[in-house]
Parts: sequence; C-alpha cells; structure tokens
Amino acid sequence: MFRARVHSQFVSLDGYSAGDFVTFDKPIGDAQALFGWFDGQGIEGIGDVDAPVTMDRALFALWGQGIGAEIMGRKKFGPQQGPWPEDGWRGWWGEEPPFKTPCFVLTHHPREPMHFPNGTSFHFIDAAPVEALRQAKEAANNLDVRIGGGPSTVRQFLAADLVDFMHVAIVPITLGHGTSLWEGVEGIEDRFDIETIGSSSGLTHQLWNRKERE
Amino acid sequence: MFRARVHSQFVSLDGYSAGDFVTFDKPIGDAQALFGWFDGQGIEGIGDVDAPVTMDRALFALWGQGIGAEIMGRKKFGPQQGPWPEDGWRGWWGEEPPFKTPCFVLTHHPREPMHFPNGTSFHFIDAAPVEALRQAKEAANNLDVRIGGGPSTVRQFLAADLVDFMHVAIVPITLGHGTSLWEGVEGIEDRFDIETIGSSSGLTHQLWNRKERE
Repeated sequence: MFRARVHSQFVSLDGYSAGDFVTFDKPIGDAQALFGWFDGQGIEGIGDVDAPVTMDRALFALWGQGIGAEIMGRKKFGPQQGPWPEDGWRGWWGEEPPFKTPCFVLTHHPREPMHFPNGTSFHFIDAAPVEALRQAKEAANNLDVRIGGGPSTVRQFLAADLVDFMHVAIVPITLGHGTSLWEGVEGIEDRFDIETIGSSSGLTHQLWNRKERE
Repeated sequence: MFRARVHSQFVSLDGYSAGDFVTFDKPIGDAQALFGWFDGQGIEGIGDVDAPVTMDRALFALWGQGIGAEIMGRKKFGPQQGPWPEDGWRGWWGEEPPFKTPCFVLTHHPREPMHFPNGTSFHFIDAAPVEALRQAKEAANNLDVRIGGGPSTVRQFLAADLVDFMHVAIVPITLGHGTSLWEGVEGIEDRFDIETIGSSSGLTHQLWNRKERE
C-alpha cells in the first residue's frame, strides 16, 4: 500500500513549525527552540540510537522506514531566493545528506540534479503537488514517499489531500510568530483518524492516518 | 553502543506470557489470546505495515531495527523434548523464517545448524546466558542481539542482568495459569528506567531501559 508520509513534524502550541526568516546561519529561522527536543538520533531506526529507547525516539525512528523518495520545499534545501547563484551550494548537509534516496526540491527555477555517494540525489522541479508526487512515487521503487517539509510544503500537500500519514510532535512552547503548519487547512482533521499520545518528555505525539478514500 | 534487546513481549495482567503446554498445534500453548493484539505486521519497520500506522505498530516495529542476531529458547523453535527426533522439523516458520539473521537456539541437545535462503540460520547450542550472548554478539556484525523468548528464556537473561532494553506489552486479559514472565525476577525493576504508555487499543506499553552500569 503506497503512502505519502509526513514525519517528525514539530509544531508549537500556537501552531508554528518554522521561523519567519531562513538564513545560512539559521536553517529553520528563529524557531530553533522547536527542535531542541530532537537530537537527530534514530532516523533510520533505533539501531542508530546511542541512548535510551524512549517512545519519543521510537516515533522519530519512523522517519526512514520504508521510504524511497522525498519531496521538499526549496527553503529546506537552501536559503537562496530567485535564480540560483553560482555559489557551489549543495544543501545544508555537506557531502553526506541523511536522505539516501532521490529528493525532489520544489522550485520555480529548475536546474541540473546533484548526486551524492550515499544514494542521496536532489532533483529540482517546478511542479504542482500532484505532479511532484507522481514523479517521486515513480522514483521510490515501490516504497513510500516522504513529504519532507518545510511547513508550507506540508500545508500544500494537506490542502491537496495528498497526505496519507502524518506524525506531528506538539512542543510545549509558544513562538508568537513564524510559519504556521495549520493556516489555510481548516477542516482537514475530518479526513483523518487521529491518535494522540502524551509523552513523559512533555511532547504530545499525534499520528494522523488518512481514512479510507471513497 | 551494543544492546541485548527484548521486543514485543506480551504479558497478561496476571503476568503470564505463554501457555503451559506447547504442541505442534499450539505454538504458544493455551495463551493464544495474548497474541490476538498483534497481526505480525511491521516487524521490519512500518514500511511493511499495510494498515494505519498506530503507536502500537510503531512500537512493534522496533523488533527488527538494528538487530544482527537472535537468541531463543528451544520451545520457540519447536515442541520437541529430549533428543531431537528425525522428523525433518525446521522450525514453525517454513522456508522463510522472519528472522533473516543467525539465531541461537538454547538446547541441551546440540545438533548441526540449519540455513535458509533469506539469511536466517539456526545454531543449536548448550550454553549459559552469558556464553550464548557472547556467541550471538560475535555473529551480529556490530548490531544488537534480540533475546527472542519464550518467557522462561527472557527470565534467565533478566536474572543474569544481561538485558539492556525490553519492550513489554501488557494485554488487558487474565489467563490464570501459564508461563510467567515475572517469576523469580523480583527487584529487577530497580535496574531499569521504565516508561509506561497507555494505548487507545487497550494495551499498555512499557519501555525498560537498563540504567547505566557502574
């Protein structure tokens, strides 16, 4: 069963998932506090976790399981705007990006793909969500596709009813401003079965599973 | 960090994890009701789950992550007792056992190993827990070792303080009799940090992480 999946989507109590401005110094803008709850361990499974296996880590470890491709917004790849400068930028992650699959970067400025030795590749496409998903699914080798964010990209896919699963982690902080996860997607909860689990860490996890389509 | 891990250890409210008698017809004795909560999906990750991704399934999916070998009791392999009969028995699982790693079967009657095309092998050893774990660790290729049960095997490794992680799933039924998970291991809880999570399914999950050894 193919799924388009959103993972480890952190959101503040007031609904923000990223800061207002993304710069080279601040990949997620002024919302760094959202991610203090995540140490990056276990994205391919708890075999990678060099720490106690908590429920938080078990759920974050869903990120890589059965994923064959990712779709991401341009700002997840880099802070540039407009036509790409000749700056040698190859993403935030150096020469070992964690994805290890084809990644489709949504941009109005397509360019040649980039390839990395660990199996990661970036493909720059100017496409609406449904067409981007078609291409990612084709590249995913019968595995699932991750909708990798940022929040405005996740919102686009939610609005187009293309998301089959979403793991939201509600962080017990308020930000006051930033990029909302929820703006413009009122009513989507009707399409999902939602399981909510409190964690002793203070996080609240939600697992959104799309109801069967009629 | 190496770990010896117990996964998806179902236990009734009165502490039983298997029935009294194991036969060819009843691999877990008369305690089948314990396992009605588990459909076997996702043992290698939620990519295998052809159903909603619930917290229950996310936790069951820890089973295979980062595991390089298993240790099991003889009754998990088959219902025979005493010297092995010439019955062609190759385990409960047919020609595609789910393990896909070396498995060490504890028995007082060692015999030649069995190999399967999918990477599973069974090695029959007469060894105390610490020696069995040494052999399994050597075979695990720098990955973790699963203590695969049944409950009396898990108890032996708990008593010897060889378990680093244990996922217990408490099932809301009583059995009245059977093989206890807890008999003879009083006080072990002092050695662990225990996280308890209620599930909307009725299960209670516990994640036992061994405290740092001094």
